[in-house]
Amino acid sequence: MSQAIPSPGEALRAVRFEAGVLHLLDQRALPHETRWLVCHDAAAVADAIRAMVVRGAPAIGIAAAYGMAMAAAAGDDPEIAEATLRASRPTAVNLHWALARMRALGDVDAAVRAEEARAIHAEDLAQNLRMAELGAGMLGTGARVLTHCNTGALATGGHGTALGVIRTAWSAGRLGAVFHTETRPWLQGARLTAWELAAEGIPATMIADAAAAQLMAGGGLDWVIVGADRVAANGDTANKIGTLALATCARAFGTRVMVVAPSGTVDPDCADGAAIPIEERDGDELCTLGGTRSAPAGTRAWNPVFDVTPAAMIDAFVCERGVARPALGEHPAELLRGPADGGQETESTAGSA
Amino acid sequence: MSQAIPSPGEALRAVRFEAGVLHLLDQRALPHETRWLVCHDAAAVADAIRAMVVRGAPAIGIAAAYGMAMAAAAGDDPEIAEATLRASRPTAVNLHWALARMRALGDVDAAVRAEEARAIHAEDLAQNLRMAELGAGMLGTGARVLTHCNTGALATGGHGTALGVIRTAWSAGRLGAVFHTETRPWLQGARLTAWELAAEGIPATMIADAAAAQLMAGGGLDWVIVGADRVAANGDTANKIGTLALATCARAFGTRVMVVAPSGTVDPDCADGAAIPIEERDGDELCTLGGTRSAPAGTRAWNPVFDVTPAAMIDAFVCERGVARPALGEHPAELLRGPADGGQETESTAGSA
Repeated sequence: MSQAIPSPGEALRAVRFEAGVLHLLDQRALPHETRWLVCHDAAAVADAIRAMVVRGAPAIGIAAAYGMAMAAAAGDDPEIAEATLRASRPTAVNLHWALARMRALGDVDAAVRAEEARAIHAEDLAQNLRMAELGAGMLGTGARVLTHCNTGALATGGHGTALGVIRTAWSAGRLGAVFHTETRPWLQGARLTAWELAAEGIPATMIADAAAAQLMAGGGLDWVIVGADRVAANGDTANKIGTLALATCARAFGTRVMVVAPSGTVDPDCADGAAIPIEERDGDELCTLGGTRSAPAGTRAWNPVFDVTPAAMIDAFVCERGVARPALGEHPAELLRGPADGGQETESTAGSA
Repeated sequence: MSQAIPSPGEALRAVRFEAGVLHLLDQRALPHETRWLVCHDAAAVADAIRAMVVRGAPAIGIAAAYGMAMAAAAGDDPEIAEATLRASRPTAVNLHWALARMRALGDVDAAVRAEEARAIHAEDLAQNLRMAELGAGMLGTGARVLTHCNTGALATGGHGTALGVIRTAWSAGRLGAVFHTETRPWLQGARLTAWELAAEGIPATMIADAAAAQLMAGGGLDWVIVGADRVAANGDTANKIGTLALATCARAFGTRVMVVAPSGTVDPDCADGAAIPIEERDGDELCTLGGTRSAPAGTRAWNPVFDVTPAAMIDAFVCERGVARPALGEHPAELLRGPADGGQETESTAGSA
């Protein structure tokens, strides 16, 4: 397993486009095995997204953009390629956003299309670094933080969203403690976040998803920091199943909630969370543990893999354009207006308040 | 596995005292294997409790009582036997209650002591049947219920506490849907509750611990029904890790919370939940899944296996003596006063309100 952890300072990259071919670090095999899947066309990318070889809303969007680039290079029907990619996962809006951006290029040659995919990738990394500064700046000295699922380099174009905030805050010496959940059923926390934090040398403590309330009730937590798969115009946020429970408990026990996601995650066409489609995956993902059955044969399971946290439970929404406070009625969609301020170092806040 | 499921109508018994020897259905091996562990003395019973061969607060108390009976039969030092058993698990008060009852017998011969242990066992079953009637009577027709951990025949002297309510309510045709959690890290829901419900022919749906909030927010749940390991005088309740999150979300989304536990679970010496010791087990229980490591080597985990739910979040506390409404300020400890009304069919309520 040690070969899978990059040496300190070496950036972890889970999505690599080299010589016109997409290499994806197979996240199903981590942390035990470092295996790369090579995709030569859009259909293979769609399969990889569906099977969760690549996961995390930003990484899915980036992979899909490269899928469209490969379709152009091969002369495949772009409409079929786009439709195949769009159908691969229903909840993350970054997928739609990246496909729309590739489509907007119009009639350009394949090299231009590949450059656009690389630009989407590079911009995601730059946005993450910007968000990490903004988010880390909101944390008090010695803050004790909990993250859920995996929102690091594995889930993005690099550095990460929520985990990017934690990385940057850790480097700045701001954090008192880092906790992460296990994240059932797919174990993104146990398998991927634990692995990334170890690679970065950030000491962390894993808890069962169900133990967060006890941690908060004991006064041991200041912030829950999570990513997002889709943010409605009003700030209602679809994210990994369990986020709603974390936010609900945070509200009850005085812990604050921060959502960190690039502006491409905001879907202005969704007025609120009720309009966000929630993916339900096969119940067998819950009835098995690392390939071994836990529940008896015949056990029926309901396996929604996302939930929707109401805006009223979210203290801060951080994107590369600035910060909105959904709990105070500030709508993330307002951050989409006007020119991006990604280069500014000052913290900007949406809303008229 | 089929041999492990009793045929319909055959009562499941996980604790059997036969020919002066205690047989425990090894709950670590379920649902894949039916294996019995035979204990010949109190030390073996204490080991079995610590290793979770037998678990569930009432079953632990019963097993400990049989342990004291075996110590008496063998002429072992009763003080050492009692101290060994008491130290086996810190949170469940039934263990202390059963040991105190065995000690109160004073200087009697071993046969009387064995009879007392059998009486504790038989009374637990009778109490469970009484509680099941009381609890089921509180559910509206078509109620959709969720239970956590395992509180069935495996965890008690028979029938179960929270799962006993669900069994009785199901038999009476009152239930619209039965959900149960997976219950990480020990998978009591996936391994044991799913197995018991299948044995009883009760259709049920498993969910990830972290998915309950989404179920509640969607309006799909009427009651959370759980057992207890220790109930403070004011109604604060220690139960399996995750109960606090379920109750907190229930409060937020209009779902009601019922705690079902025999009166021996109430600890009048604990004024409130802050006085209840919370067992923390080895973090490796969380880093592994059915023996396979999920998290990378070196991952640190915090593994409290119980949490404390404030009385204000509990709509109903049901014991064999009646029902208290902790959220309305009725103290479960008040139910301990006066003669037991276990034989009555009418529902009694604690408190002066």
